[in-house]
Amino acid sequence: MNVTTVDVELGSRRYPIRIGRGILTADSLTDRIQGDRVIVVTNETVAPLWLDRIHSALGQGSRVHDCVLPDGERFKNLEVLQRILDTAVDNRCDRQSTVVALGGGVIGDMAGFAAAIYQRGIPFLQVPTTLLAQVDSSVGGKTGVNHPRGKNMIGAFHQPRCVIADTATLDTLDDRQLRAGLAEVIKYGLIADRPFFEWLEASVSALLAREPAALRHAIEQSCRNKAAIVAADEYEQDRRALLNLGHTFGHAIETATGYESWLHGEAIAAGMCMAARVSERLDMLTTDARRRTEAIFGAAGLPTEPPPIDGERMLGLMTGDKKARHGRIRLVLMDAIGAARVVEDYAPKALEDELGIPPNAEVPAG
Amino acid sequence: MNVTTVDVELGSRRYPIRIGRGILTADSLTDRIQGDRVIVVTNETVAPLWLDRIHSALGQGSRVHDCVLPDGERFKNLEVLQRILDTAVDNRCDRQSTVVALGGGVIGDMAGFAAAIYQRGIPFLQVPTTLLAQVDSSVGGKTGVNHPRGKNMIGAFHQPRCVIADTATLDTLDDRQLRAGLAEVIKYGLIADRPFFEWLEASVSALLAREPAALRHAIEQSCRNKAAIVAADEYEQDRRALLNLGHTFGHAIETATGYESWLHGEAIAAGMCMAARVSERLDMLTTDARRRTEAIFGAAGLPTEPPPIDGERMLGLMTGDKKARHGRIRLVLMDAIGAARVVEDYAPKALEDELGIPPNAEVPAG
Repeated sequence: MNVTTVDVELGSRRYPIRIGRGILTADSLTDRIQGDRVIVVTNETVAPLWLDRIHSALGQGSRVHDCVLPDGERFKNLEVLQRILDTAVDNRCDRQSTVVALGGGVIGDMAGFAAAIYQRGIPFLQVPTTLLAQVDSSVGGKTGVNHPRGKNMIGAFHQPRCVIADTATLDTLDDRQLRAGLAEVIKYGLIADRPFFEWLEASVSALLAREPAALRHAIEQSCRNKAAIVAADEYEQDRRALLNLGHTFGHAIETATGYESWLHGEAIAAGMCMAARVSERLDMLTTDARRRTEAIFGAAGLPTEPPPIDGERMLGLMTGDKKARHGRIRLVLMDAIGAARVVEDYAPKALEDELGIPPNAEVPAG
Repeated sequence: MNVTTVDVELGSRRYPIRIGRGILTADSLTDRIQGDRVIVVTNETVAPLWLDRIHSALGQGSRVHDCVLPDGERFKNLEVLQRILDTAVDNRCDRQSTVVALGGGVIGDMAGFAAAIYQRGIPFLQVPTTLLAQVDSSVGGKTGVNHPRGKNMIGAFHQPRCVIADTATLDTLDDRQLRAGLAEVIKYGLIADRPFFEWLEASVSALLAREPAALRHAIEQSCRNKAAIVAADEYEQDRRALLNLGHTFGHAIETATGYESWLHGEAIAAGMCMAARVSERLDMLTTDARRRTEAIFGAAGLPTEPPPIDGERMLGLMTGDKKARHGRIRLVLMDAIGAARVVEDYAPKALEDELGIPPNAEVPAG
């Protein structure tokens, strides 16, 4: 079995990301389970495809209880979270019990958050089954749920014990979800890895055609980038904020559209193009680099423009995003492809122009 | 102003407990607030007494929003917690905003938990207004809410930036609440501080009469004990578990009685006497020490026996308590006054006898 391991170096909480095709079948999870009880959290879409496989991997030694949630970002809330907690209490899970997150980003975030707050924190494993979850959300310990008025407003940092990324699970992923995952892959190139960006420019069609070697390289290189950033700044005091490139715009798009019509990856693709355009307006980024940014998202079949949302409403939603500081909107902007940074002190006109807010409009105070 | 400071030594998260009479009036809280927004969480009982004082202490520099919750342990749940989170979102609090917990243990636990999970963690201050909160729950970073089937089942470790214990707030505390707080004070003597226990034996009547010097010494010495244990073992891997003396019994009593008729301090007083009797049955504790344990709680006007609850039901509730490991009930027991330890491997008969379970009864599996 061909398995690549990328370690997330967090001292005593160090953990491996294992990447390979078919590893969910071959890898036993029993070594990674401490107590005798396991809660598998998944959704109605993933359960029929992969739940049996997880049960086999968990073996006979554990009492396994499933918690199958409805599928979709709109269910990522405190109310649905309670079902996971109820399952844990009902089955008398204790501090040695383990939660397994089997699914995409929503399942990983919710299962991880339930593990973070059940009895003030119990172990959990990530088994991501979407490209987006394999390259981004399953790694780094950000967990949480949405508030009706803001994405990921409620959550915790809680690192998994292991991430098992079986690329075979992507076979059942639809094309739209695959493209949405590519948005986060491209992000690593834009913020910190120019050679990877150039490889991606040359490999977009291979990735969309799901060529196994291309997909695997994209996942591995994304995980290496993410692991390095998380190891350097676990709690997002500093460098980790770069991973939010396009996200302040993207979260506002998701909130404005009710988490329904736009996938997260689509929203941040548009958001990264918006960030690139603001960067160009501020003379931070060259026109050529802005064009290459838009072009790669276009080639990946992702949006480069936001949906029609009133500019002042967008601004209001962005101010409410948790990356705001003292009511000002901090943005991750680009100096070049492969070089992003957090900017707080910029001419507001560049942002207002991007949002289509007319010059003398009354801008709401933070 | 006569202020004592006890530091909780947690490296970069080190914080002071400030103890004194009238310090809430004299101390300005403005130095302890980072951003420009503050949410004060309190309850309907405390608000009319102390909310104005907090507003004065916070000064003019901050936008202060109040969140006044109903009073009582039965409101310590996820549903009521949402009101705090809603207040934070509605007022666009960001990661630099501060939550102030003004009240007893329930308010401190809930406000602290809301601060722990709002945007994955924002700063909070503890301003405890009950004896129990001043000597125990406000110190050490345990936060959380109850689940319908278990106390503190959902929560997080999240340390406050500061604890302000103004002994003047105890003037408005009723006698029953004062006695309940003494249960936690006595606990420190029992688990780790025999000289303090002996001082308490001699000082119970002064404490019940609210003599300021006695109360203040009791609070200071309790905080010193708690701070030392928390600094040694923040996440309860080891020594911190001793602070749960009487709590596995006590939580079962509280759950069985619906968090209504018994105060937490009353439940753990009975629980500590039960732990002492089990310890005696196991020949760990002398009869004299067990009698002194019962006598001090009796002198403080606290229960030494649990309410009538079926023994097997008690056992079931204790197994569900989060201190159970692999379905076994870990107990904190006593070798002597001032010397408690965690025991997992003990003759179950000693516990069954204490709970009144007849010899050959079917004991439910974990």
